[in-house]
Amino acid sequence: MPNITVDLPQDSYKIAIAPDSLSQLGAMMQQLNLGKKVVVISNPEIFGHYGATCIESLETAGFETCSHLIPAGEEYKHLQSIQKVYDTALVNHLERSSTFVALGGGVIGDMTGFSAATWLRGVNFVQVPTSLLAIVDASVGGKTGVNHPQGKNLIGAFYQPKLVAIDPTLLKTLLPREFRAGMAEVIKYGVIWDKDLFTKLEHHPHLDTLENVGDELLETIITRSCQAKADVVGQDEKESGIRAILNYGHTIGHAVESLTNYKQFVHGEAVAIGMVAAGKIAVTMGLWTQEEADRQDALIAKTGLPTDIPSEIAIEDILETIKSDKKVKAGKVRFILPTSIGKVTITDTVTPEIIKQAMKPYGRGLGKS
Amino acid sequence: MPNITVDLPQDSYKIAIAPDSLSQLGAMMQQLNLGKKVVVISNPEIFGHYGATCIESLETAGFETCSHLIPAGEEYKHLQSIQKVYDTALVNHLERSSTFVALGGGVIGDMTGFSAATWLRGVNFVQVPTSLLAIVDASVGGKTGVNHPQGKNLIGAFYQPKLVAIDPTLLKTLLPREFRAGMAEVIKYGVIWDKDLFTKLEHHPHLDTLENVGDELLETIITRSCQAKADVVGQDEKESGIRAILNYGHTIGHAVESLTNYKQFVHGEAVAIGMVAAGKIAVTMGLWTQEEADRQDALIAKTGLPTDIPSEIAIEDILETIKSDKKVKAGKVRFILPTSIGKVTITDTVTPEIIKQAMKPYGRGLGKS
Repeated sequence: MPNITVDLPQDSYKIAIAPDSLSQLGAMMQQLNLGKKVVVISNPEIFGHYGATCIESLETAGFETCSHLIPAGEEYKHLQSIQKVYDTALVNHLERSSTFVALGGGVIGDMTGFSAATWLRGVNFVQVPTSLLAIVDASVGGKTGVNHPQGKNLIGAFYQPKLVAIDPTLLKTLLPREFRAGMAEVIKYGVIWDKDLFTKLEHHPHLDTLENVGDELLETIITRSCQAKADVVGQDEKESGIRAILNYGHTIGHAVESLTNYKQFVHGEAVAIGMVAAGKIAVTMGLWTQEEADRQDALIAKTGLPTDIPSEIAIEDILETIKSDKKVKAGKVRFILPTSIGKVTITDTVTPEIIKQAMKPYGRGLGKS
Repeated sequence: MPNITVDLPQDSYKIAIAPDSLSQLGAMMQQLNLGKKVVVISNPEIFGHYGATCIESLETAGFETCSHLIPAGEEYKHLQSIQKVYDTALVNHLERSSTFVALGGGVIGDMTGFSAATWLRGVNFVQVPTSLLAIVDASVGGKTGVNHPQGKNLIGAFYQPKLVAIDPTLLKTLLPREFRAGMAEVIKYGVIWDKDLFTKLEHHPHLDTLENVGDELLETIITRSCQAKADVVGQDEKESGIRAILNYGHTIGHAVESLTNYKQFVHGEAVAIGMVAAGKIAVTMGLWTQEEADRQDALIAKTGLPTDIPSEIAIEDILETIKSDKKVKAGKVRFILPTSIGKVTITDTVTPEIIKQAMKPYGRGLGKS
């Protein structure tokens, strides 16, 4: 599998993709001229699976290691967890040249990155993503942070890793539901950026499990998704323009997550619902064809992802919730809407009336409810 | 008075220096294409003096304002204070395009900058420094942060302001002791960077109060110090090289602050003591002449700043404390040592023995104890 470079004005870095690369982590980090000390940050379950391989690889390469575990789950993604990382860094005398390695999914990656961004005004940071969602989305691009009691990821920083080391074999311990959640972001790249990836997914008979996807398509999925993200982030690191397209499906997706108290759906599932909704809005506004929207929705359904906003959520609550999204600019809600497969537009002209109209004929979903 | 530009690869910004510029703050910010909402962060005393002028200037220019006050003092410089800033930002619906204005000294500037760096992954930040120390040091260069219970500024980020607006008339409410503390950093720029500034200070009869310094020399002090800082930061934003010279006097200075529990000395006083000590070490190592070291020490004494490490502090405690400094690299303590007035060198070859020898003949101070 190839390497991908995330090309930035400062701090460019490599995404290394290779089976069993976890055992090469120390050797890869050795090339980067980092300091001797490393803290591996993970959660107990993932560290149980992969901690020993990770630590051994680092120590063989001459690094001094320690580890810090955070209980699994979004409910620990807060500043208090970050303070405990600081305490570990202090006790182990980590220096500015030291490295924080994130061994885990998106939550561990976001928290490790934020800790690295803010300890001693910034230490080195390496991502070893262990979920498909983290591989194709969270581990690339430098978004780090934690939740505020009132909202997700409100506290954070842009902080780029020195290296993203992707080992697809780590996905074997991923729950099928988490695999599908990652696939939602993969489909997203197809719709917003990479028509060819979209078509490849369409032509594959089954997408609902890692086994059904198979090694060859998995390689394509990972490399094309990471390349798409690297392309977009390389053009707009701090999300002042085009990077916003990566939020396709996220405006209504976030609202659905929030209105179900982050309990009913995992992030990727909410994004899937949000993409279906955004597609409907695009069709209603005459920006996208019904036929292409149907193809998107069919792909989402084939992956086994949800497509409908739960019927117990009132459309008025969705409208109210998206107004408080952190990407709101001068009070206007921004939508990413497809214009053809592989292309989107960014707009703040979507009115509450358009959203209501778009959701109506379908009973808010795929016409099934 | 002139404007100075801090020239960085990304995020260059202007230091605007002008008497009564606080009343022009809104107009200056209007030029920067910032969002409508502004939170002014200050402490109660400073906000009592200058809050009304600041808010009026912003509102006249069309900004929507709110304010957030943090009790004065280093003891409030912690993550809990930052969490309260986040709460204010949330309640007032501050957006990514909004601006956090720091109206205060170094503590307010550091905390406002860190809040701005980490709210919504970075909002706009403007510095309005109200102490001489903040004007010539903390407000320029993008170092932001808070203290960890175990050490100063261990938590933080590099985050550049969009504008530094310096109004020298705000110094009239500064306590004389705080004025002198700022003068320590001014003398530092003379020793490390600007021989001409050093000579000008030497030729002025009194430096101990704002009144004795006078408007003309004050203008020189502010512009030359800010220019020196802008020059150095422009060459090395993230302190990977030359920027370290700004820490002249800080290695032993920090140790003295820490060993006196941050109670006996304000930061500038500790830096003054640290510069005298660093001068002795440079002379001991044959890097600097005794004559120039004496000139430095005389200038510090003329300003009314302390020069001696308190006799109750054992040299062994100093040695132990500097080992845990956050600038320690691979276990080696880094010193900035003068080689001639206006020039320094960065070295990690200072051994505990050299430090002991340097402090010995003087009874650890200027030969007075």
